[in-house]
Amino acid sequence: MPIFATRPAASVASLGEQRLIGHVRRWLGDTSPRAPFGIGDDCAVLPPARRAQLVTTDPVIYGRHFDAGVPARQVGAKLLKRNLSDIAAMGGRPVAAVISLALAPETSHAWLRSFYLGLAATARHYRMQIVGGDITEAPAGFFGAFLTLQGEAGGRHIVTRSGARAGDRIYVTGRLGGSRLGGHYRFIPRLREGAWLAGRPEVRAMMDLSDGLAKDIGSLTGPGLTPALCAPAIPVSPAARRLARRTGREPLAHALCDGEDYELLFVVRGRSAPAAFEAAWRRRFPRTPLTRIGLFAPLGQPWAGALDLAPYHGYEHLR
Amino acid sequence: MPIFATRPAASVASLGEQRLIGHVRRWLGDTSPRAPFGIGDDCAVLPPARRAQLVTTDPVIYGRHFDAGVPARQVGAKLLKRNLSDIAAMGGRPVAAVISLALAPETSHAWLRSFYLGLAATARHYRMQIVGGDITEAPAGFFGAFLTLQGEAGGRHIVTRSGARAGDRIYVTGRLGGSRLGGHYRFIPRLREGAWLAGRPEVRAMMDLSDGLAKDIGSLTGPGLTPALCAPAIPVSPAARRLARRTGREPLAHALCDGEDYELLFVVRGRSAPAAFEAAWRRRFPRTPLTRIGLFAPLGQPWAGALDLAPYHGYEHLR
Repeated sequence: MPIFATRPAASVASLGEQRLIGHVRRWLGDTSPRAPFGIGDDCAVLPPARRAQLVTTDPVIYGRHFDAGVPARQVGAKLLKRNLSDIAAMGGRPVAAVISLALAPETSHAWLRSFYLGLAATARHYRMQIVGGDITEAPAGFFGAFLTLQGEAGGRHIVTRSGARAGDRIYVTGRLGGSRLGGHYRFIPRLREGAWLAGRPEVRAMMDLSDGLAKDIGSLTGPGLTPALCAPAIPVSPAARRLARRTGREPLAHALCDGEDYELLFVVRGRSAPAAFEAAWRRRFPRTPLTRIGLFAPLGQPWAGALDLAPYHGYEHLR
Repeated sequence: MPIFATRPAASVASLGEQRLIGHVRRWLGDTSPRAPFGIGDDCAVLPPARRAQLVTTDPVIYGRHFDAGVPARQVGAKLLKRNLSDIAAMGGRPVAAVISLALAPETSHAWLRSFYLGLAATARHYRMQIVGGDITEAPAGFFGAFLTLQGEAGGRHIVTRSGARAGDRIYVTGRLGGSRLGGHYRFIPRLREGAWLAGRPEVRAMMDLSDGLAKDIGSLTGPGLTPALCAPAIPVSPAARRLARRTGREPLAHALCDGEDYELLFVVRGRSAPAAFEAAWRRRFPRTPLTRIGLFAPLGQPWAGALDLAPYHGYEHLR
């Protein structure tokens, strides 16, 4: 189904704003409460929050995050899942989202319906609400959906990106690379895993992988530290191997650089017992791979045989 | 200062994402707390909220909400003020915002700096914080900034758009129309007024005027009601009169239809004493005009001499 309609009658412009908003409410259905708790007043009203709150914002833009080949439902689902992955990375629970659309007048009504149905199905699955938004006309050929997601802290503490120390072990969930073969629509945000990790006292720092391990590991690497990763331990996905056969690059390069893995990268206190931690993980998440991929070494004391990350660049935006 | 640079070295693309984010942090300065309470982690962390929360989202898009003639600082200020006006309309207090940018790679670094300085100055003035965001590359020629603002309920109760009854009086702050002569950058969100009104038991419903009185009044008009407005009472701004001399339309049409007034439109219980309410207003806000412009009549019982709104259309988006 094309995102932009060729017949004016099939475009959102033929509806006008008021009727379009009425449609959006129906498409969102029970995931959108009545005003003032949902769409329809100057602000959405949310109840007081007893726990610390988490806020994140990520968009999907046509031509950048998706193209004409991607079903609209998957685009709507991905918009929310990208943001859910950020909540997962701090061990939180999602609560409510608002979505600001900027769309060309020729945007297809049918495409937008599928987009919202995908968004609503995902919101329902994660037991959260879409409480408001805005729709604004954009120049021809443009479609962007900008979502802001609010969550609440899940466990005993919020796990941030800082806190790693020398000797701490580095772990990653799932398998990395090759997401452009479809994985960046099919991924499942690691909310349950993130919440469990936030309740474990040995977990010191965490983030989700969006720009590739080689780049993202830098965000966990505090001053005075250097990551010492073990190349053979990096969990390379089957998709990365398939992609490598096409591109002629090594599979490891795809695992390190591709981006959009949406797996959790986290750091466990060096003086804890790895076997007990890993056994507890396997009992709780028997189907989610967990891999110890290295440790943080003191800067200037490189680990013999550690992977040299310099030749690998993660995804750099605006380049 | 042009929004898009002609020399590549003057564009944001020449910086790359990481350095650009570093600049943004410096431009925001003390309005953006350190991670995880501000920019730099997967989510921003906000403290628990004891009161009901308010959430709203509104963008500014190049070519739609502003053009090349508007100083970048005013664009940044307007982005926040549009959202502040929504918080004001429910009697709330602003707390924290996140901003998602979609910008063409050729966006001027110097222009973006002024935009953020305008945003930061406004945030500082209203004692609120910019806690996070996202920057994504957009197609050539596009600049959009999508802000989500979180606030908290201010007074005893939250004033919504619903609640008007037959016999209730309709009031508006300020003077209406002609905002395109510059008023839609210079306006002051009515936060103090909104908070005061939310504390008055006789105020039943409220909204801010963004699409013009003739259209927006519909949002306060509950089932079984019709607005009976007194044409000579509508406070027509000097800008609307100046604009009318250019357009050849009547000044009242500009006051009813222009949009972007960002004044408060609200409804006061019919059985309260108007003189006491209006006197209390003048004591509290001696410099903010307050005008009683009509009342809500029962549907089917039109008020003799009431303004017929049918010929006036407010701003309809996506048309």
